[in-house]
Amino acid sequence: MQSPFDQISLVGFGNVGSHLYKLFQNHGIHVSHILTKTGRTEDINNKTLLIRNPEELPNHQLTIICVNDDAISSVVDKIDPSIPVAYTSGSVNISSIKSRDDLGVFYPLQTFSKGHELKTPEFPILIEANNPTFEKQLRGVALTISSQVQLADSAYRAKIHLVAVWVNNFTNHIIHLAKKRSNVEQVDFELLKPLLMETVAKLHDMNPYEAQTGPARRGDRNTIQGQANNLTGIEKEIYELINRSIIESYNTHEEL
Amino acid sequence: MQSPFDQISLVGFGNVGSHLYKLFQNHGIHVSHILTKTGRTEDINNKTLLIRNPEELPNHQLTIICVNDDAISSVVDKIDPSIPVAYTSGSVNISSIKSRDDLGVFYPLQTFSKGHELKTPEFPILIEANNPTFEKQLRGVALTISSQVQLADSAYRAKIHLVAVWVNNFTNHIIHLAKKRSNVEQVDFELLKPLLMETVAKLHDMNPYEAQTGPARRGDRNTIQGQANNLTGIEKEIYELINRSIIESYNTHEEL
Repeated sequence: MQSPFDQISLVGFGNVGSHLYKLFQNHGIHVSHILTKTGRTEDINNKTLLIRNPEELPNHQLTIICVNDDAISSVVDKIDPSIPVAYTSGSVNISSIKSRDDLGVFYPLQTFSKGHELKTPEFPILIEANNPTFEKQLRGVALTISSQVQLADSAYRAKIHLVAVWVNNFTNHIIHLAKKRSNVEQVDFELLKPLLMETVAKLHDMNPYEAQTGPARRGDRNTIQGQANNLTGIEKEIYELINRSIIESYNTHEEL
Repeated sequence: MQSPFDQISLVGFGNVGSHLYKLFQNHGIHVSHILTKTGRTEDINNKTLLIRNPEELPNHQLTIICVNDDAISSVVDKIDPSIPVAYTSGSVNISSIKSRDDLGVFYPLQTFSKGHELKTPEFPILIEANNPTFEKQLRGVALTISSQVQLADSAYRAKIHLVAVWVNNFTNHIIHLAKKRSNVEQVDFELLKPLLMETVAKLHDMNPYEAQTGPARRGDRNTIQGQANNLTGIEKEIYELINRSIIESYNTHEEL
């Protein structure tokens, strides 16, 4: 009999689901079923069954749920209790999901965009489960696609997810705002690329606290005031708040 | 007679001055004099004269001023009018500096930290001058250390500097805050490095607008509320403001 983890099912085929699909398929774990209602599915091969009803999920086969945090609980409730279930959220506490024989978390600490190949394919996966056997099984599945598999309870995972929001979501949005401004001002954003590269490259051997440069770090208040005067709305609010935060950090020497 | 630009003088030996010194010395332009009062100067070779008084700067030799924005004007005023002067600021308008025969701008669009080797040595230099001959001379000096030399007036330079503040200063500070949080919460920041790498790697072939992921992009309001509850002070203010900005961006579909 085939091990229940030689093949798996996925629920959701968005950013996370589509990337886990490809990673599993490329590393010898067959994804036999995908439950999806909305996702583009052109990248699914013909050995994977597309289903629309949770009742069609095969019994006793691991199902990984890749849906929005706010939808996880109701999705799990619709899945037969015989089916081992893990979800991919960083923030949802395992105690908030109705218990079942095998319930767990399979949290990839990475940013995925559907249709865009991962440039950093080595990333951590954090595992949690409501029993040691399922924990071990989830760990085994994770190890097929990552060498950085760690056990982490819901509290630790929530903490690291909050840090991840800063590291990825907020930096990316700041760069979006920068690009928006360069469009408004008709500035060539390509000229900023070496600066962006160096910003991150510096962090390989420098603390971001010591890597900080620029008007707020130097205390060039006329420059800050002049720049603020060019902005309006939420862009101005962010500009002033982050500058205030930089100035406070160096006034209080909060070096880490 | 030696060309006035085969050797130059620097004023200031901080982040910018120390890096320009190394770049010029490595590319055949001898820095004969450095005027500095405070900087660590252990990296200066014995063919460069350290001076403390603007009157010691050699006449008719290009002097590049690498001091804080707010100090440029008063430093220039102390330099003999026969000396061609350029400063390295992104934001200071050339019309705000008292005019002289040769006045210009030599703005390296990069982040420099003293004592830390540049990982991205190819970066743009923006040039401006108050006369065509000096503009051409500054351009020649810039071309010795960069293949991306552009002419840019003060207005354009100010615009690109503001974008640079977002791209570098703000993203770096966000990462500082992330690291601070990971220290407070005893989360291993190393686990976040692949995420940071991927965040920037994605931008090689994706717009940051479409690259955005995370709770605010997905509209996971319970997650956002739960995370906000863990924060206080300016950290909470920034968390809420940037999330609000992300949500507004996707509500209004401000794709670029």
